[in-house]
Amino acid sequence: MTKPDVYPHVFDEAIALTPLDSHRFAGRTTEPYNNMVGPFGGVTAAAMLNAVMLHPERLGEPVALTINYAGPVEPGEFIIEAIPVRTNRSTQHWNLVLRQGDTIATTGTAFFAIRRETWSEQEMLAPDAPAPETLAALPTKGRRQWMGNYDFRIVNGSFNPAEPRESDNSQSLMWVRDYPRRAMDFQSLTAIGDSFFPRVFIRRQKFVPIGTVSMTLYFHTDSEELAAIGDQYVLGYATANQSRNNYSDQSAHIWSAGGQLLLSTTQIMYFKE
Amino acid sequence: MTKPDVYPHVFDEAIALTPLDSHRFAGRTTEPYNNMVGPFGGVTAAAMLNAVMLHPERLGEPVALTINYAGPVEPGEFIIEAIPVRTNRSTQHWNLVLRQGDTIATTGTAFFAIRRETWSEQEMLAPDAPAPETLAALPTKGRRQWMGNYDFRIVNGSFNPAEPRESDNSQSLMWVRDYPRRAMDFQSLTAIGDSFFPRVFIRRQKFVPIGTVSMTLYFHTDSEELAAIGDQYVLGYATANQSRNNYSDQSAHIWSAGGQLLLSTTQIMYFKE
Repeated sequence: MTKPDVYPHVFDEAIALTPLDSHRFAGRTTEPYNNMVGPFGGVTAAAMLNAVMLHPERLGEPVALTINYAGPVEPGEFIIEAIPVRTNRSTQHWNLVLRQGDTIATTGTAFFAIRRETWSEQEMLAPDAPAPETLAALPTKGRRQWMGNYDFRIVNGSFNPAEPRESDNSQSLMWVRDYPRRAMDFQSLTAIGDSFFPRVFIRRQKFVPIGTVSMTLYFHTDSEELAAIGDQYVLGYATANQSRNNYSDQSAHIWSAGGQLLLSTTQIMYFKE
Repeated sequence: MTKPDVYPHVFDEAIALTPLDSHRFAGRTTEPYNNMVGPFGGVTAAAMLNAVMLHPERLGEPVALTINYAGPVEPGEFIIEAIPVRTNRSTQHWNLVLRQGDTIATTGTAFFAIRRETWSEQEMLAPDAPAPETLAALPTKGRRQWMGNYDFRIVNGSFNPAEPRESDNSQSLMWVRDYPRRAMDFQSLTAIGDSFFPRVFIRRQKFVPIGTVSMTLYFHTDSEELAAIGDQYVLGYATANQSRNNYSDQSAHIWSAGGQLLLSTTQIMYFKE
């Protein structure tokens, strides 16, 4: 883990957007986040969230985000449209579309809000995990290219097609941070929320064609807290609820190293066979 | 529980839609599903799903649905627009909007698919619960009007503002079915997915102003299986992950009496104080 800090970070390049008019932003896929077909879905979600973050009419910070992967994002340019469909006093609902030419590749909705301090309680506690520094970094060379932009320290529930091992469940627990290190923000947290191995890979310990079709994220944090986390590892836990007839869902949570729940996220994924 | 079977069922009246043109359907709120402000959110979600179910271009059955409650649905007429934004060989993505005049009250996205038989496994097992017939029906008289359309048999995690009791968590386990009884379909399963008490009511055992802002449902079943369940009770379990600064999220699951997972659903709710 000796790659030096660089600026701009590859993640910032991957989610970079240029405003075209009041609601449209131009972006382009970048090679470092290549996946099997098109870019890593987490970075597409982060780019769509970024369109709202950059929008001059934005109110508050993200609370909920849903991204639907309607088809592959082809290598090259894309346009993200972010429309504030309803703005209330302290809340705002957004519709999101990513287009390439006339083709809609990705859709989504986002909910932003200005939060005030209230009674608060975290019910979903972080699982016990050994310190990330005591675990070996997951080798990512020769795997999907986007994986090389993360430093994964797998506690349990890993997958390597070259070394399958039996698993009677689909659970994974891991530490993760950007590689090279990068201070966390809502955009990078969004991408990290999609960085788990597909649950069917963990359970079946074999590769089958897969693709996320819909992902929802609930943010339990704010930009000040994320700034305080900075470039430290966060802890992620993921499990499947059901895999059935082409579709498998995942429930996952991300905590700070201090144990604060930052993100609850679910997704449903197509799988073949 | 002696109310006779009636036709049309109040639920069918509440989600009834009249096609206006290729993508628009007219509906109206109905008194039996009144909530605190506007109709019960579950019936609004069911009406939006129903627009896709009735759409002549629909492909397959629902897999994922996200509904965003952007503002109150006022008593009276509404128009739901359902647009198939992308149709692939066996999958289809939809954008949904509910309008009253020029006001957008609700938005959403849906993902439908034709499923084929694959390797399948249920990882999220149903919790143990006593048979519903051994439990008293939750008295719903004098409470929110929509609750009277359900037969709730609470195993644990209930809330009655007149009889608060301490609770150190936000978990609820309950049997539920339509009242009067009605054969289950995707629309009624959607509404039942939103029929849990707000988690902050369970944990705090007091009323505070609340409102769901976004809800996502993943369907793990098909219409044949739902027809086989018919009008039997289903088992629901819900818990909060985190309540923090105005927003509290819920993870919930619904199983058939036979233990099959039918629905995984999450939602995030505004709360005051």
